[in-house]
Amino acid sequence: MKDKEKRLILVTNDDGIDAKGIKELIKIAEKFGRVVVVAPEKGQSGMSHSVSLNEPIYLKKITSNNNTLQYSCSGTPVDSVKIALHHVLDEKPDLIISGINHGSNASVSAIYSGTIGAAREGSLNDIPSVGFSLLDHSPEADFTASIIFAEKIIEKVFENGIPKRTCLNVNIPNIHENQINGIKVCRQTKGKWVEEFNHRINPNNKEYFWLTGKFSNFEPESKDTDEWALENNYVSIVPIEVDLTSYKVLDELNKWNF
Amino acid sequence: MKDKEKRLILVTNDDGIDAKGIKELIKIAEKFGRVVVVAPEKGQSGMSHSVSLNEPIYLKKITSNNNTLQYSCSGTPVDSVKIALHHVLDEKPDLIISGINHGSNASVSAIYSGTIGAAREGSLNDIPSVGFSLLDHSPEADFTASIIFAEKIIEKVFENGIPKRTCLNVNIPNIHENQINGIKVCRQTKGKWVEEFNHRINPNNKEYFWLTGKFSNFEPESKDTDEWALENNYVSIVPIEVDLTSYKVLDELNKWNF
Repeated sequence: MKDKEKRLILVTNDDGIDAKGIKELIKIAEKFGRVVVVAPEKGQSGMSHSVSLNEPIYLKKITSNNNTLQYSCSGTPVDSVKIALHHVLDEKPDLIISGINHGSNASVSAIYSGTIGAAREGSLNDIPSVGFSLLDHSPEADFTASIIFAEKIIEKVFENGIPKRTCLNVNIPNIHENQINGIKVCRQTKGKWVEEFNHRINPNNKEYFWLTGKFSNFEPESKDTDEWALENNYVSIVPIEVDLTSYKVLDELNKWNF
Repeated sequence: MKDKEKRLILVTNDDGIDAKGIKELIKIAEKFGRVVVVAPEKGQSGMSHSVSLNEPIYLKKITSNNNTLQYSCSGTPVDSVKIALHHVLDEKPDLIISGINHGSNASVSAIYSGTIGAAREGSLNDIPSVGFSLLDHSPEADFTASIIFAEKIIEKVFENGIPKRTCLNVNIPNIHENQINGIKVCRQTKGKWVEEFNHRINPNNKEYFWLTGKFSNFEPESKDTDEWALENNYVSIVPIEVDLTSYKVLDELNKWNF
């Protein structure tokens, strides 16, 4: 393991650089090495793995309380990681951590999540990367338990590394640390968001919609899933792959006789 | 197979409703069934699987030349699919097709692609879904070969269905149809975008960046990959999974002894 002084850690998120969750994550990171923060200037929840192809990207240096370099980025979480790696930093970081997200990124939420997008971008660049999320959307969420478990997991990552082209999706139940049963390695729960659109009329008489919805778990009894772990007071870890190929479907498609 | 008159097909894209690629795809869809179009009003390339959580969504009915219902959506490609399924349509479509994208979505580009995001959203809703992309970024791209192969693939999809929670990522080389060797079922190529940031100063003296980059193929010799297929004049099909779990890493993580 590299000495603490030699380690470089990049911190980002999708709730924006002013969110409480990233402030807590920066403090955790500072216990493990030198830290640079590049995070979206505004909230970017639901931005998935998106990049700014048609918008210019602005970067702003933020004055922080201590010596940690902090930059806000006008783009997405993935833009933030890209500009950090390819413009801000002169060396490859030893770890990228994203979060702590205000709200769950378990099950299919991982697909929509900017927190996980940023972590996956790290793993595409062969950098061990972890997204952390607490199951509490409140801006004033209590991250006490998250801090304890994030530290444990980061220690393990420095000990073991993470296999290439994989990042970790960590979700933490919103309960007191004494109630947490431990850390559970899981697979992504099968489920989906059942959508509703909240229909409104704006002051100029134009109709518009807010996307809203409720998560539906297709397999609430499956004990190897992240939703089951969280329901049962475990911290969940799902290893996430950058290869989207459905290998089990390859053979079936080959029978189509094109 | 359902009768043509009974089939409903949803068409979307990420280049926006005015792009040439979606106009061609609508014409293809009309040969297979009743068609409804819900597509972004503006270009949404690189929007991945993002959703508008903090922005209202506007929907606008477009007058088309024939009877096909067309709507532009102010949101992302995935927003377009969601609002189509949950607000515009009264019945579940039999197929969702997204594209034809102006430019490749092979290898890791699938992760960044709004075209593929929209198709994956379809598969999350258990609707057979296909993203089509032509390897030509030009707004005036020639879709002649794409049309022939898209029709072949859609026929096969109606014949065979697509396994649940999987969508198809189809890429078409930018060559004459007579030069195309056929259709090849592939896995996603290991690779990444090697980024550069083009650094500029705006008229108000503020510095900004454009994201730019070059694709780097880590395994150009692997004949089972989509990049190899395209290089060798095949149409590539990669089945894409909504489950992001890296199953081969699960065991390794379980050895970490949390």
